[in-house]
Amino acid sequence: MANDASTVFDLVILGGGSGGYAAALRASQLGLDVALIEKNKLGGTCLHQGCIPTKALLHAGEIADAAREGAEFGVRSTFDGIDIAGVHKYKDGVVSGLYKGLQGLVASRKITYVEGEGRLSSPTSVDVNGQRYNGRHVLLATGSVPRSLPGLTIDGDRIISSDHALVLDRVPKSAIVLGGGVIGVEFASVWKSFGAEVTIVEGLPHLVPVEDENSSKLLERAFRKRGITFSLGSFFQGAEYTDDGVRVTLDNGKTFEAEVLLVAIGRGPVSQGLGYEEAGVATERGFVQVDEYCQTNVPTISAVGDLIPTLQLAHVGFAEGILVAERLAGLSPVPIDYDGVPRVTYCHPEVASVGVTEARAKELYGADQVVTLKYNLGGNGKSKILKTAGEIKLVQVRDGAVVGVHMVGDRLGEQVGEAQLIYNWEALPAEVAQLIHAHPTQNEALGEAHLALAGKPLHSHD
Amino acid sequence: MANDASTVFDLVILGGGSGGYAAALRASQLGLDVALIEKNKLGGTCLHQGCIPTKALLHAGEIADAAREGAEFGVRSTFDGIDIAGVHKYKDGVVSGLYKGLQGLVASRKITYVEGEGRLSSPTSVDVNGQRYNGRHVLLATGSVPRSLPGLTIDGDRIISSDHALVLDRVPKSAIVLGGGVIGVEFASVWKSFGAEVTIVEGLPHLVPVEDENSSKLLERAFRKRGITFSLGSFFQGAEYTDDGVRVTLDNGKTFEAEVLLVAIGRGPVSQGLGYEEAGVATERGFVQVDEYCQTNVPTISAVGDLIPTLQLAHVGFAEGILVAERLAGLSPVPIDYDGVPRVTYCHPEVASVGVTEARAKELYGADQVVTLKYNLGGNGKSKILKTAGEIKLVQVRDGAVVGVHMVGDRLGEQVGEAQLIYNWEALPAEVAQLIHAHPTQNEALGEAHLALAGKPLHSHD
Repeated sequence: MANDASTVFDLVILGGGSGGYAAALRASQLGLDVALIEKNKLGGTCLHQGCIPTKALLHAGEIADAAREGAEFGVRSTFDGIDIAGVHKYKDGVVSGLYKGLQGLVASRKITYVEGEGRLSSPTSVDVNGQRYNGRHVLLATGSVPRSLPGLTIDGDRIISSDHALVLDRVPKSAIVLGGGVIGVEFASVWKSFGAEVTIVEGLPHLVPVEDENSSKLLERAFRKRGITFSLGSFFQGAEYTDDGVRVTLDNGKTFEAEVLLVAIGRGPVSQGLGYEEAGVATERGFVQVDEYCQTNVPTISAVGDLIPTLQLAHVGFAEGILVAERLAGLSPVPIDYDGVPRVTYCHPEVASVGVTEARAKELYGADQVVTLKYNLGGNGKSKILKTAGEIKLVQVRDGAVVGVHMVGDRLGEQVGEAQLIYNWEALPAEVAQLIHAHPTQNEALGEAHLALAGKPLHSHD
Repeated sequence: MANDASTVFDLVILGGGSGGYAAALRASQLGLDVALIEKNKLGGTCLHQGCIPTKALLHAGEIADAAREGAEFGVRSTFDGIDIAGVHKYKDGVVSGLYKGLQGLVASRKITYVEGEGRLSSPTSVDVNGQRYNGRHVLLATGSVPRSLPGLTIDGDRIISSDHALVLDRVPKSAIVLGGGVIGVEFASVWKSFGAEVTIVEGLPHLVPVEDENSSKLLERAFRKRGITFSLGSFFQGAEYTDDGVRVTLDNGKTFEAEVLLVAIGRGPVSQGLGYEEAGVATERGFVQVDEYCQTNVPTISAVGDLIPTLQLAHVGFAEGILVAERLAGLSPVPIDYDGVPRVTYCHPEVASVGVTEARAKELYGADQVVTLKYNLGGNGKSKILKTAGEIKLVQVRDGAVVGVHMVGDRLGEQVGEAQLIYNWEALPAEVAQLIHAHPTQNEALGEAHLALAGKPLHSHD
């Protein structure tokens, strides 16, 4: 649909990342006239600076580890270093293939796609490239950017963000990663696989601090074994340049030096200077505030994705975008249960979870009402074949459903599909235990854990 | 518990493989006195000659492929061949670790474990090592061995079975694999990864002929791309020795030559000469006949595992063993829905399925009542990262539940956990589509397939 002054779209979307384009695709499918405005590239952070390129790097790391460790498997292989141009070519090839697919998808629906820097000009319009796009409804989906700390200037060379790390033209000899959350541990894992010396600095007491403490501890054990060093529980105080790198000082006085410092302390919402305040959209610490239907305080404006204070995950953006589209089309979508959203950290080994942590379950149900079970991958044939260690931990309400699944181990991110069905369908351990899991898979470990929790362990002790 | 003439066990089990030991573990847990008799090694075929060692070989193959293809990922790696002694050391290490774990498990329960060649001496006793073990009930779990064809002598050198292939002291330059079922395609995949020239001969029109035809075709395409050759639809006629190998002739006159011939036409039950006939146990083509509770025609005798004509899978053996133990302990276990058992072929790429094929669904529900959907992994980010191709095909009863999930692609065997929950809990596509799958996982492809089947495709065309 072409745009002129008189055109009023059903929905004008500002931002073509995961949340924005999912809303556009679903809304157009439901018969709405949609304008989708993106200043950079369709697909947003996830496709171009986030999920996809980082996972390509991690897989290159897996290949490097495989070549390096071939002898352990009887394979005569050598690892002679990283061809970083080749890595980027591979990564960019994956991204561009998906990008083309996404462009084709958007083109195939009746979506008016506009490239340009948009700005909310009223509760029912977005201006872009000197044109006004009017909509009965507007969806804000402007996403997030890497954050820094006060006094810490990201120069893009020695002090870098994840955006820079993704296109770095070399493997650093050594790196300090500031932040032990998802982004930090993933880059730490990649660089270690690529041959760098890596130190992670995390102010909280654990790596991946939002995960169940057991997962954090298992990841720390695995990283220690890989020779990734880390400092926990002391905060960053300052960074200064050295002759050939950066020196970081912590608040406990300790210092670390490396060739590069990656600042991976999280991502902040992109909500400034876009007309949001002027239109009266309520924000808090930059995040646009919404209700459980992703509706802002302005009736004609919704918001989704990293811009709102929900989990910063592409698949959450997809789900929120779909939710808004279905609501505007007059369907009755149900609010998202954010605890039921699967979460995966793709480092080596992977960390995956769904539902609540043991600590949170105790708050919700009372300490004496929470039962946990840990199944060690040491008893799982396929995990032994992969030479990966880890555990699956289940959190159950006494005599009730499984409300948390927490997993650490190579490739266990792929188990989160069954785990989320178990959580979301409120399965009892016995209901899962009744079902047969394939031998010898890693998936079987999930079955064995439920067998054990149901009181009938097969390949584990009572 | 020691054995003397007056001892009567609750259950005497002949065979310590998957079915036998699972029954022993569960029965002892339920308070029964159990004797478990095994002529060779606890763990049986699965642990020592089947699932576990073959998957170790397949993983060594994956490592070899990774090292060989490193450049595609920007990794400077080389593949300089297979150190077959190293492969065996790795494989045997995995097996012996699991074997120790299993021995410890059996020792920790009050199970009388007897090593020796047992023989059914009456409907309530097994003789072994000159002693009689009396039981109120006897479980036959003597498993299976590789089959051959009339006139085809397995010499263990040039004409070999899977037992020999597992311990072969070299990578053959070339191999003919007779049989394109699970065992055949797994060894073909390993040897190709190890550098051999491989030809598969399958008399039926497709590889993995019991799978949905779409899966067979996808595997054939992938194998063709890997340079694995195969002949379909013509049967084996004869084999003769050449100067340095074997020549195989098919009934269409074609011949193939190679260094070794692997006979992988299936496994037959071990039921001869063990006193089964004398005790009146009914068999058919060697398989012990049972009802849906694994009960033979002799009231005091049950049978499980590869010995009975159900799916020859370790996890089926586990489930049947548990079923028998629970029945004898007075619980009321429900019969196994064999269609709901997940099936995985671990070649590269993997083939996995649960539920019924499209063809079978049409027989069951009528051709016009069956809906199918194929989701191509080309749209799945993680699969692109892994550079694997394939599809997830769903078979649905019109407006009803998903009754078949058929997958081809590297690592997709691990998706069979969520797939079997969907099948066994009779999920509607919309119920799965409602739930959020993690991006970017391969698991997400299962979510996308259900979104599309529910009429709301996200990353695929309408």
